[in-house]
Amino acid sequence: MSALPSHQALTVDQKYELITSNLQEVIRGDFIREILPVRPLKLYQGTATTGRPHAAYFVPAIKIAQFLQAGCKVKVLLADLHGFLDADKVPEGVLESRAQYYERVIGALLRAVGVKLDNLEFVRGSSYQLTPEFSSDLLRLSKRVSVHDAVKASSQIVKSTGEPVMADGIYPMMQLLDEEYLDVDAEFGGIEQRKTFALANDTMNKVGFKVRAHLMNPMVPGLAGGKISSSDPKSKIDLVDDPETIRKKIAKAYCAPRELEGNGLLAFIQHVLLPYSQLQSQDGKAAITATLKDQSDPTTFTCFAEVVIAYESDLLTPQLAKKIVEEGLVKLITSVHQDFEADTEWQRISEAAYPDPNMIKAQKKQQNKNANTVVPNHTEASG
Amino acid sequence: MSALPSHQALTVDQKYELITSNLQEVIRGDFIREILPVRPLKLYQGTATTGRPHAAYFVPAIKIAQFLQAGCKVKVLLADLHGFLDADKVPEGVLESRAQYYERVIGALLRAVGVKLDNLEFVRGSSYQLTPEFSSDLLRLSKRVSVHDAVKASSQIVKSTGEPVMADGIYPMMQLLDEEYLDVDAEFGGIEQRKTFALANDTMNKVGFKVRAHLMNPMVPGLAGGKISSSDPKSKIDLVDDPETIRKKIAKAYCAPRELEGNGLLAFIQHVLLPYSQLQSQDGKAAITATLKDQSDPTTFTCFAEVVIAYESDLLTPQLAKKIVEEGLVKLITSVHQDFEADTEWQRISEAAYPDPNMIKAQKKQQNKNANTVVPNHTEASG
Repeated sequence: MSALPSHQALTVDQKYELITSNLQEVIRGDFIREILPVRPLKLYQGTATTGRPHAAYFVPAIKIAQFLQAGCKVKVLLADLHGFLDADKVPEGVLESRAQYYERVIGALLRAVGVKLDNLEFVRGSSYQLTPEFSSDLLRLSKRVSVHDAVKASSQIVKSTGEPVMADGIYPMMQLLDEEYLDVDAEFGGIEQRKTFALANDTMNKVGFKVRAHLMNPMVPGLAGGKISSSDPKSKIDLVDDPETIRKKIAKAYCAPRELEGNGLLAFIQHVLLPYSQLQSQDGKAAITATLKDQSDPTTFTCFAEVVIAYESDLLTPQLAKKIVEEGLVKLITSVHQDFEADTEWQRISEAAYPDPNMIKAQKKQQNKNANTVVPNHTEASG
Repeated sequence: MSALPSHQALTVDQKYELITSNLQEVIRGDFIREILPVRPLKLYQGTATTGRPHAAYFVPAIKIAQFLQAGCKVKVLLADLHGFLDADKVPEGVLESRAQYYERVIGALLRAVGVKLDNLEFVRGSSYQLTPEFSSDLLRLSKRVSVHDAVKASSQIVKSTGEPVMADGIYPMMQLLDEEYLDVDAEFGGIEQRKTFALANDTMNKVGFKVRAHLMNPMVPGLAGGKISSSDPKSKIDLVDDPETIRKKIAKAYCAPRELEGNGLLAFIQHVLLPYSQLQSQDGKAAITATLKDQSDPTTFTCFAEVVIAYESDLLTPQLAKKIVEEGLVKLITSVHQDFEADTEWQRISEAAYPDPNMIKAQKKQQNKNANTVVPNHTEASG
């Protein structure tokens, strides 16, 4: 439960501050400022339902919590078809399970953060992206988007498998239409979405659609730190890891004294723990307390600038930073973990969504044999 | 009414000969030969419903008549959405009228040729190309088709407006799926389709679809001849031109003695009048009769090789060739003309499909204001 004053009590400036805090870039912030005094801002974040979400998913989850706290109506797009389009990240047979898995994970993350979810809605991409209306708009849009711009837009998002394929260009076009079909004022995403957002900015009015605002999170370094491969599953902190495993992984994380660049632990403090403490506080102020090196009294950080000063002077040592992150993360993940343990359906979905590699191989074989449609359970193809 | 022996009386070799006569290229002819003894060959031709069809449309119409004569089941795809995708050839507001216009024209052309139409079916592209099944297959296909190959495939088909747009790459992908959704054994088109057909040949089995046979007509020079611009409306012979206008246009056509290369009149004899005479004959043999220069008795040509010899020796002069084409074309077009005159609905459609430029401007203005869907009359967009 959030302890912040309800959004009715926030001024327009406070709402705007909360919505844009920690972002790297905002396009058309003026448009957001126009809406805030009049009605709730409608906003969406799309998440391609690909690999198993890990601790870094708390970073966008905190932004969503802040949007909700600021009174926004938020849609989380479970972009299952985008997941399918992205190289070989999602075998066709597990599309539905992955979307179900992501919905549960993101719900659990937000419950862990403790924000009210009344204004949150999950939408499945495949629930509208295959309709005649959407398909017809995709064709209209395809006449206005150059191959070059479309492929460039997705180049920092989809996995490259060599030569660009048509799916790479369709991916961002569908994302543009999502803004229209989800009926939002703004889209939130990582800075890697920048070219897609710029394409939306340049193109939407050419097909008769509104130009939306765009909010971009910076790239946040992973908890494991720069020197440990983030693709090494042993270094990634899974959302269902137990506290002991989390402790071990954080203990191993790369974190040099006084070094801020690429420091995943400090980034986690900035993008998760400080805003989390703010969401939890009675007075709307962030607060993280720690006893620094060679000091007897505890120090309370109320903003990231204070953390930076302490870290640069090595009063906040890597060991202390690790302790802060470990405590915060264990608390958050314990909540997710409890949700998972209590939900046998989620456990079943988890196995279906991320089967072991041998199972995937068997599924692929079956797929090649007879599956002709991306999404199961729609009416038979005429061909 | 065709006077040829019915297809039941034709041998497999005769059918194959009729199906492939005058073609420039056949891919997987062996596949066609396998089917012919067993059941009717299923075949389609797609025609993007763009500009107003003119006399050259008799060239593919004759091939369709031959396919029907050989006992094939033929679908003519009125590719309205392909027409829409092709640059600015079809304003959105006239899509439906153009498809209706093409259906009537092609029907009239085939009636003029006199073949039985029992095994002919018209299919509108938009009747299935916006369904969830088709859209889902388009996404599946888009992962297997490189941007390079897709754009290359359409480069000789769609009008270039500078930098390639995504529509240029979607165009051939939809054509590949058409083969599956129309449930055919073979696709017929002009040689400009070669790269699309090659793409189909290389790709269909990667998405679990059959590889079809492909039949290609050569590029046939226009009746106006090489030196008169075919984009000059005064030189193009419209299907509703009266006999006097046709005579004038043919009289002006470029046609040098003994020159075969790019000779539109000889091409018309080869690709329309000779096969037409064959379709009309009692004995299944082509026959065009003319009294050649300095001769008193008429000569009968039974194949194009004989025409070539006579033209190269200037016994068949440009004037005589023009007379042959004029007589044949007037006869064919008179039939089309009569159909048009008797059909007030077609006349209304004609005006709606090809309005004067001022009307188009007004429609565009209206379109930009409120039209968000390519095809009218489907359920409302949710966005």
